[in-house]
Amino acid sequence: MEVSTEFVMPKGFQAAGAHIGIKKDTDKKDLALLVSDCPAEFAVALTTNVVKAAPIIWNQKVDQAGKKIKAIVCNSGNANACTGSAGIAHNEEMAAQTAACLGAQKNEVLVASTGVIGVTLPIDVVKAGIQKVAPQLKSYAPAGIAAAEAIMTTDSFAKYCTIQTVIGGKIVTITGLAKGSGMIHPNMATMLSFVLTDATISKALLHKALIDSVQVSYNMISVDGDTSTNDMVAVLANGASGAAEIVEGGADWKNFVDALNAVNTYLAKSIARDGEGATKLLTVTVKGSKNIQEAQKLSKSVVSSNLVKTAMFGEDANWGRIVAALGYGGVAFDPTKISVQMASDAGVVSLLSSGEPCDFSEDLAAAVMKKKNIEVLIDLNDGLSWATAWGCDLSYDYVRINGSYRT
Amino acid sequence: MEVSTEFVMPKGFQAAGAHIGIKKDTDKKDLALLVSDCPAEFAVALTTNVVKAAPIIWNQKVDQAGKKIKAIVCNSGNANACTGSAGIAHNEEMAAQTAACLGAQKNEVLVASTGVIGVTLPIDVVKAGIQKVAPQLKSYAPAGIAAAEAIMTTDSFAKYCTIQTVIGGKIVTITGLAKGSGMIHPNMATMLSFVLTDATISKALLHKALIDSVQVSYNMISVDGDTSTNDMVAVLANGASGAAEIVEGGADWKNFVDALNAVNTYLAKSIARDGEGATKLLTVTVKGSKNIQEAQKLSKSVVSSNLVKTAMFGEDANWGRIVAALGYGGVAFDPTKISVQMASDAGVVSLLSSGEPCDFSEDLAAAVMKKKNIEVLIDLNDGLSWATAWGCDLSYDYVRINGSYRT
Repeated sequence: MEVSTEFVMPKGFQAAGAHIGIKKDTDKKDLALLVSDCPAEFAVALTTNVVKAAPIIWNQKVDQAGKKIKAIVCNSGNANACTGSAGIAHNEEMAAQTAACLGAQKNEVLVASTGVIGVTLPIDVVKAGIQKVAPQLKSYAPAGIAAAEAIMTTDSFAKYCTIQTVIGGKIVTITGLAKGSGMIHPNMATMLSFVLTDATISKALLHKALIDSVQVSYNMISVDGDTSTNDMVAVLANGASGAAEIVEGGADWKNFVDALNAVNTYLAKSIARDGEGATKLLTVTVKGSKNIQEAQKLSKSVVSSNLVKTAMFGEDANWGRIVAALGYGGVAFDPTKISVQMASDAGVVSLLSSGEPCDFSEDLAAAVMKKKNIEVLIDLNDGLSWATAWGCDLSYDYVRINGSYRT
Repeated sequence: MEVSTEFVMPKGFQAAGAHIGIKKDTDKKDLALLVSDCPAEFAVALTTNVVKAAPIIWNQKVDQAGKKIKAIVCNSGNANACTGSAGIAHNEEMAAQTAACLGAQKNEVLVASTGVIGVTLPIDVVKAGIQKVAPQLKSYAPAGIAAAEAIMTTDSFAKYCTIQTVIGGKIVTITGLAKGSGMIHPNMATMLSFVLTDATISKALLHKALIDSVQVSYNMISVDGDTSTNDMVAVLANGASGAAEIVEGGADWKNFVDALNAVNTYLAKSIARDGEGATKLLTVTVKGSKNIQEAQKLSKSVVSSNLVKTAMFGEDANWGRIVAALGYGGVAFDPTKISVQMASDAGVVSLLSSGEPCDFSEDLAAAVMKKKNIEVLIDLNDGLSWATAWGCDLSYDYVRINGSYRT
C-alpha cells in the first residue's frame, strides 16, 4: 500500500507545535501537542531498555489503566531520563498541565520526551509552554507539520505520511509522525512515533495491529546499535470517521493492518535514511531462510555492522564484511550455500554465489555504490522466508554530531 | 602480575617475519613464522563466527587430532575467508609448504590469515615467501618482533609482551604477540594472538588455562562490535625450560595461570588502545553485580556503544549514554540503585549516585575527559561481583580507515 507524503489530519484531531524555550535556538520548535476531540482508544509499544525515562514509566501506567485518552504532549531538547525522583514528578506535572488546558484528566494524557539524558527538565518553562501552545491547536495540516517539527532533535527533516482508504464503509485516514535520528536500534519497541487515525477499533485489536506492525517496521531499523531509554510508538484511534468498528479477520481488518504497516514502514525508513550523519539509505534483505525470525536477525546484523556502514560511506563493495556480519548474527547457516548481491538504480552486481566469490566488475560495483539508495540482497538458499532491515552509512558527520551533542 | 614490554624468546622457539609480496607496500611485512624446535603442546580458541575462514577450519582439524605441533604460519594482507573451495586448498598448501621447509608434517602446522575478506590468496607468492622466510628463523628477540610486525594489518604498533617466572623449579618464559585492530568484538574467541612458552604442561591443562583466560581478556574488548571470521588465539608450550610438568591446583598452576592472564590481558588492552582510529583507551568496570557474567555483559555493552565512544572522542562527559547502554545490555537491574563515575589521571568525577544525577563540576569533568586513559566506574549496588571491559573511542579516523579499506 502506497503512502502519501502529505500530512492529512484525521477527523477529530488537532495538533500544535512551537518553540517554548527548552532548546537554545529560538528557531527550533520544542513542544508538540496532539489532541483528540473525543476520547480515543490507543495502543503503545515502549522501550525494552531497563533504564526507562520518566514518560515511559508514566505511559506504562496510563496503558495499564485501560481507559481512553485525549492527548499526547511531547517535548524535545530534554529526554527526562535518569533524572531521578524529580523527573518522575516533572513528568506528572507535564501531564497535569496539559490536562488542565484541555479540560481533561491527567491520566488521559500520554507524555513523551526526547533529547539529552540526565539533565533536569526545566519544568516551569515546560508548563508555561504548554499553556502557550494549547490555544494554538488546529485541525489543519500545517499544525500537524508543526508538531512533527517540534519533536525533532538531530533529525534533518520532519517525518510524516498519510494513508486514506475505505474501512467500515467510510474513508478512514491514518497519519503518522516520527523522529529519529540517533540512539536508534529499536528492540520490541521504537523511537518516537505517533500515529493518529479516525478509524473505529477496540483497544485490544489496535494493540495487536501495532505490535505486529512494529516487528516489521521500527524494529527492523538501526542507526547506531544503541536502544534509547525513551523509545515509544503510540497509535490513537478516535472513531471520528464514523466508520463501522473494525473486527478481526475481515477485509476491513486486513485493510487497516496493511495501511498501518505502510505508514509505520514509511516512517521507519525515513528515520533510517535520516540517521545521524547518514548519506545513504541501506536496505538489507535476507531471503531463502528457514523462518522469518532468522531472516530478521541476520538482516539486522548486517545493517547494524559498523564495518558494513563505513564501507557504504566509502562506496566500497567490501562484501566480505557483509558475510562476516551474517556470520556473527546468532543464526546457524551453511556458508557454502549463500549468495550476495548489491543493487541500486545503477544496476545489480553479484558478489558471492553459493559460497564462491564472483569475478565481478569493479566499475559496475563502483557505479552501484555511488547511488543514495543501496540494496543488499542475501540468499541463504535454505528456505522460503525472508525479511528486510533498513539502516544507513556511518560517516564523519556521525562522529562530529555525537562527539559534541551534550555541550 | 606485571608483564615486561620487551620481547624475550622462550627457550626452544624461533621466529621470523618479512615482506613476501602480499601487501603492496614493500616496507610492510606480511608473513610470520613461529617454530618450536621440538613438538609442542598447544591449545586454541577459534572464532564463533558461523562464517569461518579457511585457516580456522584447518586449525579445528589440527586441534581435534590431538597431536603436538611444530609451527604457526601467518600471513597478513589477505584473510583467506569467503574464498570458497580454492581457499581451503590454498590453506592446505600453506601448511604443506611450511612443513616441507621445516621437515615436519603438514598437520603439525597451524595456519592464520588476516586482512581483506573474499579475495583469493596469491598462493604462489605465499609459497615462495615461506621458502624465503624459513631460512631466516632465529631464536633472538628481533626475529620475534619481526614476526609481531608481520601479522599487523591496520595496527599502528606491534603488540607483544613477556613474563618470566619460576614454575616447576625453573625459570619459565611466556611471550605473546597479537594484532588488532578492526573487526574486533571477540565472542568466546579472539582476534589473532599467539602465545609461546617453554613451560611443561599437558594439552588438557593448557586448554583449560587458555579458555578461562580468554573470558577475562580478549573476550572483554571491543573496537567496533564486529566479530571477525578469522579470530584465533593459540598457545604453544614446548617444555624447553626443562621445568617439571605443571599439575592442576598447585602453586605452579596458579603461577602459570596468573602469568598467562597477565600476558593475555596486556595484549587485549593493547588491541583496544590501538583500535582503528582510536585516540583513547576506555576502561569500563561494573561492580556491585550479582555475578560475574552480568557484570561482563554490562561492561561490554557500555564499552561497545557507538554513542559512548563518540562522546569519549568528543571529550564530552555524556553519562546518560553510559546509563542507556547499561539499560539495553540484556541484564535486569534496578536503575534507582546505580552510581556512575568517570576517572583519569586528572581526578574522579561522580555523575550519578543511587539513581539521582549529581551536580558535578563541568571543569573537572572536562579535565578528566582530556586524558588518554579514561575509566568508567559503575556500581550496581546489588552484589559483590565485578568485571572490566576495554575499548576505545570512535573517531573520524575510524570512518576514514574503514571507508576505503579494500581498495
